[in-house]
Amino acid sequence: MININSAIFDQEGSIFMGTQRVCEKCDIGIVGVPYDGTTSFRPGARFGPTSIKEVSNGIESYCPQLKIDINELNIIDLGLLNITFGAPEPVIKKVKEAVSILLKNEIKPLILGGEHSITIGSIKAIAEKYKDLILIQLDAHADLRESWLGSKFSHACTIKRCLELMPSKKVFQVGIRSGTCEEYKEIYKNKRLINETSNSIAENLDNSLKSFIGKPIYLTLDLDWFDPSVLPGTGTPEPGGYLWRDFSAIVEILCKHNIVGVDIVELCPQLDPSGMSSILAAKATRSLLILLAIAKAKYK
Amino acid sequence: MININSAIFDQEGSIFMGTQRVCEKCDIGIVGVPYDGTTSFRPGARFGPTSIKEVSNGIESYCPQLKIDINELNIIDLGLLNITFGAPEPVIKKVKEAVSILLKNEIKPLILGGEHSITIGSIKAIAEKYKDLILIQLDAHADLRESWLGSKFSHACTIKRCLELMPSKKVFQVGIRSGTCEEYKEIYKNKRLINETSNSIAENLDNSLKSFIGKPIYLTLDLDWFDPSVLPGTGTPEPGGYLWRDFSAIVEILCKHNIVGVDIVELCPQLDPSGMSSILAAKATRSLLILLAIAKAKYK
Amino acid sequence: MININSAIFDQEGSIFMGTQRVCEKCDIGIVGVPYDGTTSFRPGARFGPTSIKEVSNGIESYCPQLKIDINELNIIDLGLLNITFGAPEPVIKKVKEAVSILLKNEIKPLILGGEHSITIGSIKAIAEKYKDLILIQLDAHADLRESWLGSKFSHACTIKRCLELMPSKKVFQVGIRSGTCEEYKEIYKNKRLINETSNSIAENLDNSLKSFIGKPIYLTLDLDWFDPSVLPGTGTPEPGGYLWRDFSAIVEILCKHNIVGVDIVELCPQLDPSGMSSILAAKATRSLLILLAIAKAKYK
Amino acid sequence: MININSAIFDQEGSIFMGTQRVCEKCDIGIVGVPYDGTTSFRPGARFGPTSIKEVSNGIESYCPQLKIDINELNIIDLGLLNITFGAPEPVIKKVKEAVSILLKNEIKPLILGGEHSITIGSIKAIAEKYKDLILIQLDAHADLRESWLGSKFSHACTIKRCLELMPSKKVFQVGIRSGTCEEYKEIYKNKRLINETSNSIAENLDNSLKSFIGKPIYLTLDLDWFDPSVLPGTGTPEPGGYLWRDFSAIVEILCKHNIVGVDIVELCPQLDPSGMSSILAAKATRSLLILLAIAKAKYK
Amino acid sequence: MININSAIFDQEGSIFMGTQRVCEKCDIGIVGVPYDGTTSFRPGARFGPTSIKEVSNGIESYCPQLKIDINELNIIDLGLLNITFGAPEPVIKKVKEAVSILLKNEIKPLILGGEHSITIGSIKAIAEKYKDLILIQLDAHADLRESWLGSKFSHACTIKRCLELMPSKKVFQVGIRSGTCEEYKEIYKNKRLINETSNSIAENLDNSLKSFIGKPIYLTLDLDWFDPSVLPGTGTPEPGGYLWRDFSAIVEILCKHNIVGVDIVELCPQLDPSGMSSILAAKATRSLLILLAIAKAKYK
Amino acid sequence: MININSAIFDQEGSIFMGTQRVCEKCDIGIVGVPYDGTTSFRPGARFGPTSIKEVSNGIESYCPQLKIDINELNIIDLGLLNITFGAPEPVIKKVKEAVSILLKNEIKPLILGGEHSITIGSIKAIAEKYKDLILIQLDAHADLRESWLGSKFSHACTIKRCLELMPSKKVFQVGIRSGTCEEYKEIYKNKRLINETSNSIAENLDNSLKSFIGKPIYLTLDLDWFDPSVLPGTGTPEPGGYLWRDFSAIVEILCKHNIVGVDIVELCPQLDPSGMSSILAAKATRSLLILLAIAKAKYK
Repeated sequence: MININSAIFDQEGSIFMGTQRVCEKCDIGIVGVPYDGTTSFRPGARFGPTSIKEVSNGIESYCPQLKIDINELNIIDLGLLNITFGAPEPVIKKVKEAVSILLKNEIKPLILGGEHSITIGSIKAIAEKYKDLILIQLDAHADLRESWLGSKFSHACTIKRCLELMPSKKVFQVGIRSGTCEEYKEIYKNKRLINETSNSIAENLDNSLKSFIGKPIYLTLDLDWFDPSVLPGTGTPEPGGYLWRDFSAIVEILCKHNIVGVDIVELCPQLDPSGMSSILAAKATRSLLILLAIAKAKYK
Repeated sequence: MININSAIFDQEGSIFMGTQRVCEKCDIGIVGVPYDGTTSFRPGARFGPTSIKEVSNGIESYCPQLKIDINELNIIDLGLLNITFGAPEPVIKKVKEAVSILLKNEIKPLILGGEHSITIGSIKAIAEKYKDLILIQLDAHADLRESWLGSKFSHACTIKRCLELMPSKKVFQVGIRSGTCEEYKEIYKNKRLINETSNSIAENLDNSLKSFIGKPIYLTLDLDWFDPSVLPGTGTPEPGGYLWRDFSAIVEILCKHNIVGVDIVELCPQLDPSGMSSILAAKATRSLLILLAIAKAKYK
Repeated sequence: MININSAIFDQEGSIFMGTQRVCEKCDIGIVGVPYDGTTSFRPGARFGPTSIKEVSNGIESYCPQLKIDINELNIIDLGLLNITFGAPEPVIKKVKEAVSILLKNEIKPLILGGEHSITIGSIKAIAEKYKDLILIQLDAHADLRESWLGSKFSHACTIKRCLELMPSKKVFQVGIRSGTCEEYKEIYKNKRLINETSNSIAENLDNSLKSFIGKPIYLTLDLDWFDPSVLPGTGTPEPGGYLWRDFSAIVEILCKHNIVGVDIVELCPQLDPSGMSSILAAKATRSLLILLAIAKAKYK
Repeated sequence: MININSAIFDQEGSIFMGTQRVCEKCDIGIVGVPYDGTTSFRPGARFGPTSIKEVSNGIESYCPQLKIDINELNIIDLGLLNITFGAPEPVIKKVKEAVSILLKNEIKPLILGGEHSITIGSIKAIAEKYKDLILIQLDAHADLRESWLGSKFSHACTIKRCLELMPSKKVFQVGIRSGTCEEYKEIYKNKRLINETSNSIAENLDNSLKSFIGKPIYLTLDLDWFDPSVLPGTGTPEPGGYLWRDFSAIVEILCKHNIVGVDIVELCPQLDPSGMSSILAAKATRSLLILLAIAKAKYK
Repeated sequence: MININSAIFDQEGSIFMGTQRVCEKCDIGIVGVPYDGTTSFRPGARFGPTSIKEVSNGIESYCPQLKIDINELNIIDLGLLNITFGAPEPVIKKVKEAVSILLKNEIKPLILGGEHSITIGSIKAIAEKYKDLILIQLDAHADLRESWLGSKFSHACTIKRCLELMPSKKVFQVGIRSGTCEEYKEIYKNKRLINETSNSIAENLDNSLKSFIGKPIYLTLDLDWFDPSVLPGTGTPEPGGYLWRDFSAIVEILCKHNIVGVDIVELCPQLDPSGMSSILAAKATRSLLILLAIAKAKYK
Repeated sequence: MININSAIFDQEGSIFMGTQRVCEKCDIGIVGVPYDGTTSFRPGARFGPTSIKEVSNGIESYCPQLKIDINELNIIDLGLLNITFGAPEPVIKKVKEAVSILLKNEIKPLILGGEHSITIGSIKAIAEKYKDLILIQLDAHADLRESWLGSKFSHACTIKRCLELMPSKKVFQVGIRSGTCEEYKEIYKNKRLINETSNSIAENLDNSLKSFIGKPIYLTLDLDWFDPSVLPGTGTPEPGGYLWRDFSAIVEILCKHNIVGVDIVELCPQLDPSGMSSILAAKATRSLLILLAIAKAKYK
């Protein structure tokens, strides 16, 4: 019986549909990180994890694309990380601690943010274990600033910081459509951009990943990657984004790969009174939980 | 002069643009059913009929696709059905009664919901008259549960119940993208699913309907068939849906067919402060009123 | 040092990102017109200019499509026009006055509405200077009514009035999808409609504009041209509209042409609590400011 | 059978609870005026009349204070005045016309605004009939400006204009708590202010009205007289206002007087998502309809 | 160790601050009933219990009025009752069952609604145990209809039904300010109304209760008893209500009495975006939990 | 000509009505501090300063209570402090710096928050200058925690920290109605609470301040001191608060005293869609600006 009862988790409150607080066997663990302290424009990502869990009961546990029901999987929902408000550094440290606990228990992490800076903590733990880790970033923004509004750990610096932690320096930046001139120069120079060209974005990603079958991959999904029309509830929506069918095609591609960790960040539920943003985030969470389970079955 | 003044109708309140409370001649009748009693997740479909009528004055009466103006048609707006709150059975019975009154007067019904369970009442009346009735369901959800939260007449059981009432057992489930594993098995076994494959969804529907030219067809449009981005105002939005151009293409196809009745359900206007959901529903209503008129002119 | 300090401008309040109140050199001027007096359905376009400016700080100043940073351009933000509420005629007169001041200073105008009727004032000033002016209208509605709700200067009559002011009578109506039967007859008779056919709408516009390279072009962007899913915050949203990628393709086309003035109208920010409508409008403003700068460099 | 079917009324849409579109006998008539064209700060008073009628069905028809049921009275609901948007002058003219029609039919008017400027039209008609008319203004603002934002008929000038139309020049300004220094000077000079001093505001009004028993009184209720806590849904809320019990006490006082006309203005329902503002306005309408009926029974 | 694990409770989700899911010793039990099936005007009371629990963490556990901290008490939070949507009868039956389980375990019930009809179930169980039960109703509405919209168990009939279940027929209706003429006649005839007269409403209640010291009292708090200004989030707000200081004074009075059960109903959190309605309800819940504890200590 | 152009101020954006960016002579300076980093429950106080300034144009510049027009005073609006997001310490330091600059220029500070922790910075600067400084706190919460959620500079610790900075240790806590048992013990022990007893709260404050005429007084107004009914837009609303007339009476009292600095904190405008919270805050700001001017004229 697995019951991770560390004091760093607050285990009251909702759980994601089809998962449990205490598991007999456990392949995947969900951790919520209700932090949005460096968000300068519109705060509220702190409400993301709870909102995703609450609305998850409004969607089916069965995924018709992947033909698997969440109820068949072994998933523990660890609740919310107990964090202090204010500066990002202690939060990033706690995320690292939480992910390390999971990894020690052979549990694959799925982190629900919270703002994007929390990815740094997750990568810190994961990159320690997997030296050849590859990062896939689905995002509207490059997040390659050296520092932002006086902080090196702002959500606008996430990928810059992650790259410093990854020995492989290998990141695919999928669907980026906003950045400074400098950020674009860095992306182009390093050939990191996965974009729609003559092919769909999923095909382009597929081609880029071909030589990395079996390598450990971490997926960070900044929800503003989606078009604001399908996900208005995010702090810095950027027109010209992607739709569910694009995400769905990417999920299809990733089925072949060894996904070792996932985070889903930047949902601001209070900006979307219709609730469709949280529902899309919950449906994406359902797909990614199944992806993690498929990868665990295949590669471990 | 046609003036259906049955006590089952509450004839105060708004009317749909271009229609009348009392008609000299009458081909089509609009009935609102403000019921959402079995809705478990987010109620409010009760406000659908009035919202559609109110915003209808914000769109043109002329349809550039079908090149007909609503003002040229003979449409009576019968107001709202007087219903009791609580259990669905008495409401379904009243819907049946209302549709029967219309059919006796040679008036084609267009029902504005309210939740999906009200379709059962409409099909009850229509299937009595047309033994070879075919049902077309535009919906995100399969709605094939035997029962749901203790009720056999929940909105999650609508198509299951309708099939029991239709001698033909013929239903086309267009665009379903959510269901349990069991529901999907039933759909696939009976080859009911109309989906996007290599063709567009409208072409696939066209092919499926080819052998049914002239047969009586009932169309039930659960508005969550549309993508949440174009229709956020519905109780259980499901990402990955359809756009106006898909609906428009289906309308093009249905012009050739004998549409004998229509319902438009599951609009929750209060979930969409922009009002665009109600406006889309009103524009769809405009198209379907014209479809009913075209069919009446052609097949009667 | 350019400092247009006419009493017709209220120069308190926000400015568009990357622009200035006082410039050393000046190519483009931004004028806000907070007027929505003839709006019959849902008012609020008066809040458009301020909302666009406020959210503009949430997007980057660098445009990855056109590869130019707003900060490199010489743009003056003249604030809001001081207008009286009520009848449209005095407002239209003031817009004309403001645009004339800009033209006299060799500054290209970008007007932020407010409702569509303000375009009449802008065209009045521009068509006086450019006798062969061509008008490109991106809009959902034909706006060709002779009068509406008792006013000849309603926002539903804008293009009708503009045509009377333009010696060339040349207008391209791009993406119109709503109108009366009479309005459609006028559009078809004069072959003004640019639509999606076998080509994309941008390609069709490109073909139509081929013989007009170098001619002065005024672009009026009624934001309801966009699909309500990407821009819900507008007074009369019309389903079946265009997406950011369509706009982006049109911007690509217009780079070759001599754009001499632009307006962006009908944003109602309070109808969209997510704020994505204002953000899209700000991003479109960024593109069009760069277009004006490119045209000025090329043709002047 | 009374059926006022003038083209100036739009008689579709909701009616106030307990009233009728067509009456056998008629003492009181309700006219809605959906105009807010001079509102500079936050528009939306145009939605007031319909909102009051819609929510009226959520309150009882029986008034426990006055012990009368609305259903016992003879009240016609004439719908909404057909107005043009833009300048106030034509709207004020139409209100005058509508009130004159009512007076000719011996029907007492209750006008539902819309912004405060519409009172001018009502007073124009009433003061023609009653030369010794007394005006009672319940309002937060003095409304005594000579002109505002370029218009003499702005809602900020209402009482100034009304005084010019009334031979008696007699107005009681009840509860005013905002104005310019000049407005306050005029109020104090003319001893018009009814305020809370050692007595309650109702007692003070009672004392002031003592010598006017039987005289024709017109009551204009600008809903921002109420404290924003009980009526947040108004364009220019002003802290420090009055509660329902104060209104109730004033109703008690006015029972003795000859109320010949009433208007209720400046409700902006869209600013109050709870709907309590519209409900309070509907309850106040219920009281004032009964007051008009009591006065008609007593003085006519 | 007390752990009431009946299948009628859904024990996932939030708990009220300072309480527990499993208790060593237990004096008071909280049961949520998310039902609003007979609500005709504006649904949403189903979201009441969860909202109260969620916001309870935003207030202190210490009550400065009663000088007790919730953390010192023995309170079990039993979660939400598993109910079916639709008709009220099965829900009322389940509430009765739940309250009976508590009473058998010597636990005092505090029920969080949901709509007012659920009180009937609670009274059914309580009145079986306490034959001389007295009911105190804090409410804006009389709730004495024999039936409403076709149902005898509508929330508008609650007190009528409760009286049939109580041998004592003793009810104090505190602060009622809305009803039909018939309802008022019944109230006056039976001298049930506690109102503000020369005394405050709390003093009047105190006087009325003087001869009932020690008798078992059930308190039903329909939150629309409060003025809409302090509690806008309720389905049928009624102007002219009571403030926190009035409630606080009543709590002071009730300290002397033997409160054996409590319910708090008709919170519609989604109607109040500020959240203050849920917070007031949570603070009232805190007071009433302490009242139940005081009574248990004193009378048992 | 006074023009404080320090880089710590961001001087774009709105200014408070009746004030200026650059002054010839200057008695009072307004500084906005858009910080809410330690807010654990509901963020958004960062939007407070801008919201107050924006709505200030909707109220009159003339104060009828104090009979002074803001336009007659010499007030500079310094814009917003440039702050970093995240930890509170650097923000508090910047506030201290800003207030010190003002004091050096003989300008009295009025700070617009932002969350309550910013008061610490203000007091730091003021208490350095005025050793006998007295603090008046209008607040719902005691704010006397030693630390909160891991921070000693949380908004829940403000007064604790301020007391450490003030040699006099003299604070009057006016209207506190929420705290832990420990906080209440400290308050009672030190006789700091000003409450409603037999007198009004203003009379009680008057009595307490009698022996401090002429002493330097700093007023910190946490807007949750007001009842949630009049100010719903705050992070932690607490029922049972004060109304505008109570504030108005306190202003009356403070006219006699030597107010040397003021802050107004904890407005969360996005929680109140009606805008009345921001309007009340702006009206309170108007009163307090005048108070500062009166004190400067009298005591300097």
